[in-house]
Amino acid sequence: MKDIAGSPGTWSGLALRASQFVCAAGSLVAMGSAFGFTNYSAFCFMALSMCLQLIWSFILACIDIHSLKTNWDLHNTRHVWKYIIGDWVVAIASMAATSSSAGVAILLVRDTQFCRVHDEQLVACSRYKFSIILAFMAWSFIAASAGSTFWLLVSLLD
Amino acid sequence: MKDIAGSPGTWSGLALRASQFVCAAGSLVAMGSAFGFTNYSAFCFMALSMCLQLIWSFILACIDIHSLKTNWDLHNTRHVWKYIIGDWVVAIASMAATSSSAGVAILLVRDTQFCRVHDEQLVACSRYKFSIILAFMAWSFIAASAGSTFWLLVSLLD
Repeated sequence: MKDIAGSPGTWSGLALRASQFVCAAGSLVAMGSAFGFTNYSAFCFMALSMCLQLIWSFILACIDIHSLKTNWDLHNTRHVWKYIIGDWVVAIASMAATSSSAGVAILLVRDTQFCRVHDEQLVACSRYKFSIILAFMAWSFIAASAGSTFWLLVSLLD
Repeated sequence: MKDIAGSPGTWSGLALRASQFVCAAGSLVAMGSAFGFTNYSAFCFMALSMCLQLIWSFILACIDIHSLKTNWDLHNTRHVWKYIIGDWVVAIASMAATSSSAGVAILLVRDTQFCRVHDEQLVACSRYKFSIILAFMAWSFIAASAGSTFWLLVSLLD
């Protein structure tokens, strides 16, 4: 098995999947507990993409644990193709969703001063921000996974 | 020279750079001509990232033309590192900026019906949308460039 950090079936790969799972779950909880987030399409899209990332990273973490226990070799082109497509789709979707939510949050907090004018929105606004920060962290972990899996694929094909 | 479609110093690479330049320029013109875009941080960030992409793709297109004319081999690790860092930084910045602008545009058009309520905003809103579509096209072309340059780097290193 090729020794590429963060690739499927390695301890570092499992650590990345676990980090994605924790950050995506935290982001979902923060967004779900913020009042009125369903009024904003961008926030709903982000919650949806975090659900997707939660499910994807959970499945991949289970496969990693099974592979580490049984010494199952995941490093062949047939398997790596599936990971790479899934990883890139989830990574691009969560990047787009998180950035669009960040754009909306900046509009609410800075451009229109909506959060300062409406006192009852202060708690919700801070939860939006916290959720977006966690979603960015989840994205950075899945981007690392996607990069190392792509590296693995190219080195297998060459 | 390795024959990877879209990599630096090839005709397909030059076509990708030219497409990036045209889309980024179109997006900038559409945004610059839309009334009141400076009120929104996300739109300003997108205009800035399109300026960056315009300059980057212009420089790379000039290098590609020079390489094609003089048969200068750009496919060595020393050169490819520079392209890959630049391409990925510009691609991620324009993806983030374009998605955040799309989030704000959806908020204005769908969630708050701001564009329908304020008749004088109708032209500006359609220009925002047009600018964002062109920015997404520019991003898809630079993502293709970044992907093929990364593929080239990994095949050079292996």
